[in-house]
Amino acid sequence: MTADTLSLALWQCPYAGRSSEALVRLDATAAQARAQGAGLLVCPEMSLTGYQIGAAQVAELAEPADGALAQAVGAIAQRHGIAIVYGYPEHHAGSKPYNAAQFISADGQRVANYRKTHLFGDIDRAQFSPGPQAPAVFGWNGWRLGLLICYDIEFPEPARGLALQGADAILVPTANMVAFDEVQRVLLPARALENRVYVAYANACGQEGDTAYGGLSTVCGPLGDAGHSAGRDEALLLVTLEPSALQRARVGAQWPDRRPALYAPGRG
Amino acid sequence: MTADTLSLALWQCPYAGRSSEALVRLDATAAQARAQGAGLLVCPEMSLTGYQIGAAQVAELAEPADGALAQAVGAIAQRHGIAIVYGYPEHHAGSKPYNAAQFISADGQRVANYRKTHLFGDIDRAQFSPGPQAPAVFGWNGWRLGLLICYDIEFPEPARGLALQGADAILVPTANMVAFDEVQRVLLPARALENRVYVAYANACGQEGDTAYGGLSTVCGPLGDAGHSAGRDEALLLVTLEPSALQRARVGAQWPDRRPALYAPGRG
Repeated sequence: MTADTLSLALWQCPYAGRSSEALVRLDATAAQARAQGAGLLVCPEMSLTGYQIGAAQVAELAEPADGALAQAVGAIAQRHGIAIVYGYPEHHAGSKPYNAAQFISADGQRVANYRKTHLFGDIDRAQFSPGPQAPAVFGWNGWRLGLLICYDIEFPEPARGLALQGADAILVPTANMVAFDEVQRVLLPARALENRVYVAYANACGQEGDTAYGGLSTVCGPLGDAGHSAGRDEALLLVTLEPSALQRARVGAQWPDRRPALYAPGRG
Repeated sequence: MTADTLSLALWQCPYAGRSSEALVRLDATAAQARAQGAGLLVCPEMSLTGYQIGAAQVAELAEPADGALAQAVGAIAQRHGIAIVYGYPEHHAGSKPYNAAQFISADGQRVANYRKTHLFGDIDRAQFSPGPQAPAVFGWNGWRLGLLICYDIEFPEPARGLALQGADAILVPTANMVAFDEVQRVLLPARALENRVYVAYANACGQEGDTAYGGLSTVCGPLGDAGHSAGRDEALLLVTLEPSALQRARVGAQWPDRRPALYAPGRG
């Protein structure tokens, strides 16, 4: 890769309750992130609507990928000159919405949209349809990026799929509860190391109804080093991703030694 | 599963230099492990011959899976009443030997033989042929076990393949150098947690020629807890594996949520 460094901001935040309020806060945070030098701001899962809001609310707030929320985020991105990843319920004709995340560039264009493929327990299954397609890498400013959402990163397969497409960094909007800190502690470093990619995990924090989200938003480097992590409270975590770190980490990486003919994904 | 607890001993040891000496030490260690209550003793990769001994030596020492070393280990297993996993070069007609590990039961029977599928760098490729078959789960005392060797465990796919076959524990003879401690620190806990299995990693220690092996042999529990680890020096690490821990860990495990139709192992 020949990209420049990527100045990334993870916004660890509580849910705002209403989309109008969430957009006001996003506008202020985008300004703050840009002022601190970030070129990309990643928000938690379902960041603009709330996550555990019930199937009826999800259906009511769902919109197409080019809907009103996308327009509003595009305007914020343009106003501050910063790319934004946000989460929202995506309309799905005739069925429950998708749990989606969208990447909007600093000129307000929709670059990539991803629908969560691994639904987490009753919470997700009551509200969402599973995404029908494997995650796909997309290009941005010389970087090859992929999106996953929350539970997706706990499985080795989706991150591996992105790495096999050449991903440099995997961006993960998430809403991980306090009881599951082992995701940040154990699984994220492994996903980064085994694939020699950056993994950026933007978690929610605070309460949403009875649920407490765990924060600990983290950027793991491509050797599995979790050097940059937030605490439990709201935070804007700024991390610089370095192409040179990827290049160094990829010397001796395992790719040439894979034995895909011996792997059997179809079982289980 | 309805198995009893499994009393496991990992033998972290330096290479003995000669197979005759290695067998004398194995005999003493098997006695010691049995005296401490272990029912299974796992040794490092290529434990009976040495690992970096050169292609000519590997070829000279290679034997079929029912060869002289298997007979000698079977006699040791029977004498002390303990199952043994050991590493050796397996004869391969017309080509370089396999880097193999074999499981011998306490009555001296050969239960399972595995040939390393992921060859590590020039060291392995100069000495060995890659194993042609994916690892397969085998039954022993009510446990479902799988064997991997060293580098294999750094890839998520082989461990996942064993887990999809119902593995309870993955036994990993290894020869991991001091420069690669991140395998024990980062990857083993993830393999255990993401598959809800025990991972038992029996490493070499000490010097072999110019190479220093890193020890830190580890048993990770099925929630990724690396509670049992050796240091850098020779050690006999005794750990009890509990069926009840597996049962607890598997409540809420991810299996039902996999999306194998979206996984693509054949690329890369």
